Amino acid sequence: MRMLKFSSLMNLCKVLPMTSYYERKKPYPPEEYYRIPPNELRKFVTEFFKAFKMPESDAAIAADVLVTADLFGIESHGVQRLKRYYFTPLSKGVIKPHGNPVIVKEGSTYALMDGKNGVGLVIGVKAMKLAIKKAKEKGISFVVVRNSSHYGIAGYHAKIAAEKGFIGVSLSNSQPLVAYTNTIGRNIGTNPISVAIPTKNPPPIIIDMATSVVPIGRIEVSLRLRRSIPLGWGIDKEGKLTQDPAKVFYEGALLPLGGLGEELGGHKGGCLALLVDILSGILSGGGWGPYVSSPVSGRQPNVSHFFAAIDVDIIETHNEFYERIEKLRKYIKSLRKHPQADNIWIPGEKAWLTMQTRLRIGIPVHKSVIEEFKEMSLVLGIEHLYEELIKSAKPAEEVQM
Amino acid sequence: MRMLKFSSLMNLCKVLPMTSYYERKKPYPPEEYYRIPPNELRKFVTEFFKAFKMPESDAAIAADVLVTADLFGIESHGVQRLKRYYFTPLSKGVIKPHGNPVIVKEGSTYALMDGKNGVGLVIGVKAMKLAIKKAKEKGISFVVVRNSSHYGIAGYHAKIAAEKGFIGVSLSNSQPLVAYTNTIGRNIGTNPISVAIPTKNPPPIIIDMATSVVPIGRIEVSLRLRRSIPLGWGIDKEGKLTQDPAKVFYEGALLPLGGLGEELGGHKGGCLALLVDILSGILSGGGWGPYVSSPVSGRQPNVSHFFAAIDVDIIETHNEFYERIEKLRKYIKSLRKHPQADNIWIPGEKAWLTMQTRLRIGIPVHKSVIEEFKEMSLVLGIEHLYEELIKSAKPAEEVQM
Repeated sequence: MRMLKFSSLMNLCKVLPMTSYYERKKPYPPEEYYRIPPNELRKFVTEFFKAFKMPESDAAIAADVLVTADLFGIESHGVQRLKRYYFTPLSKGVIKPHGNPVIVKEGSTYALMDGKNGVGLVIGVKAMKLAIKKAKEKGISFVVVRNSSHYGIAGYHAKIAAEKGFIGVSLSNSQPLVAYTNTIGRNIGTNPISVAIPTKNPPPIIIDMATSVVPIGRIEVSLRLRRSIPLGWGIDKEGKLTQDPAKVFYEGALLPLGGLGEELGGHKGGCLALLVDILSGILSGGGWGPYVSSPVSGRQPNVSHFFAAIDVDIIETHNEFYERIEKLRKYIKSLRKHPQADNIWIPGEKAWLTMQTRLRIGIPVHKSVIEEFKEMSLVLGIEHLYEELIKSAKPAEEVQM
Repeated sequence: MRMLKFSSLMNLCKVLPMTSYYERKKPYPPEEYYRIPPNELRKFVTEFFKAFKMPESDAAIAADVLVTADLFGIESHGVQRLKRYYFTPLSKGVIKPHGNPVIVKEGSTYALMDGKNGVGLVIGVKAMKLAIKKAKEKGISFVVVRNSSHYGIAGYHAKIAAEKGFIGVSLSNSQPLVAYTNTIGRNIGTNPISVAIPTKNPPPIIIDMATSVVPIGRIEVSLRLRRSIPLGWGIDKEGKLTQDPAKVFYEGALLPLGGLGEELGGHKGGCLALLVDILSGILSGGGWGPYVSSPVSGRQPNVSHFFAAIDVDIIETHNEFYERIEKLRKYIKSLRKHPQADNIWIPGEKAWLTMQTRLRIGIPVHKSVIEEFKEMSLVLGIEHLYEELIKSAKPAEEVQM
């Protein structure tokens, strides 16, 4: 492997001087946030999962998936979910505190796994690693998983493959939040698609996208900040486009990528959402469409995943592939920038730059989330870790950018 | 195989009574069109390719790909391309009149093929069939192709897999017509994605979508009919949204699925276009981005493809899979229809219904295209076939719907 490992890369980032900071979204309003060093946050979340009797190695994986979402600037999928997505469902037994999927069926190029209602964050990583192992032998492989739960950011799992020189595919269905093309109501998931492409030098190319125009988190944030949303993100309960996030969040639905109806390609987003449901839920014999739940619902989530890996080396040497990818990157960067655009971005680039910044100045965590950490740590008997965490935190306003 | 073969299905359609006709787009204005029986059209196009010394079996494949596009209601990719995409490039030697890709590298689960600048319509079918053969042995496989040319509708190739009980993936890059997210100018292809899903009863589920909001054919049609286009399909040379198809067609660019900028997810369409280029062009060592040409350009097309097949049977029996797919279909059809929508559609359903209709009442072909057929048949010495074709044609106005 000629690639830098992600972990060593992260260490490198800490010591290299940086000329500029970048965050895809800055904490707003800053006075409501703390900045916490990533390692402190990772330590706390690891102990959180260990408190549920999850083995240390699995707990560390779960923590890394969540903290990486925050590092990437995808806070909606990060540690702010700890209470609603993990503490409550694990406490109530809605999901089980383990990350041990069982292999139901297996061949040299494929596997069907049963997540046994465990923690999707860990199950996803193990399934992806199995796919990589098989692709290393056979060039290509796929692993489908049923009876799992929310696996965090789709890109985390695909990234594992890219770090090892494989093209990684990571798909998951999710609870219905989207109105399928030409329908009203929430009837299909935001069903994300992620594909990661290995590169010689970081960052890897990581495509990670909900198949809806926006994920639900964007609506939630607008609601909290009392901001209107762009026309085209969602519809109300009658199917009308609305700029009111409350109407989308409480009564309406998100729209598939391409928007309402078919005029601007909304049926393509609908197709992609359906495809993810077929490759994950239908193929694995697991949950799909209305049978998938959020951990917040109190019902067993029944989430299904699909992973695939392709060994680049089997077609061409990595060197040839990497060279061509660099040419492609340079080509994209050399294009004529749109006068209204901030920059021309390669998929995954914003996340990577945000990570570099947050490794230095810390991850922004909302004060209400910190408050939840405190409550949960009392229940779980890990108050000492909460104390350590809060000692390492700085008010976001005081952090120079 | 429990599935009906497509060919026998087509025969069935001819004899079954139909309660209603459906065409996704009707010929407009009708007085400018003829209706031609599909078999007559297929015969003419087969002889067309044979006149270039293509073996009969390959010529029949090429003809079927083009005629199927017309049957599916995707006229932009059908026989109206015969002159510009095949006659002229084949006559000038821009592409070669063969459909024989060479295997450069091969393993039990993968292959790299070189199209040797032949006819992509046939090369695509052969590559997909190779992928299916390998997936039958190993559960999953992929085939990448370089030095090919335009392969017609992406869905034709994916459909071959679905007809045999496999999930089929068919991707191809194409000449730059789209402005990558946050850029202006034509710099990346409309790079279509097709995935076909086998079903117990027809129609199979076929996703077939350009990764742009619309393919260039939609702009061309609006231009011909002197109609404005919806805001969001394309931009002018300065990157401004425009409703003038001429500004998009002659100077501007198409937009990626999701539209201009990132507000409504345009970066997701840009990601998908890039992904197709990576999996086809970069992985195969073939053309990508600016190195891909239209056959109309007079340059070697350098088109690259990616195919994959998954054997459904390896995870679950076909029966279980088919049962679940039917449940999914019923679920989608049972959703609450949007008050402004005509219908709730399953991917591929419109194409299939259009095919049923056109098998009965004929394929609409514009009179100017018929005129081109006449000219070409004179040059190729197949006037007698043109005469047969025209004898079978009926003015579209006279055909009852």
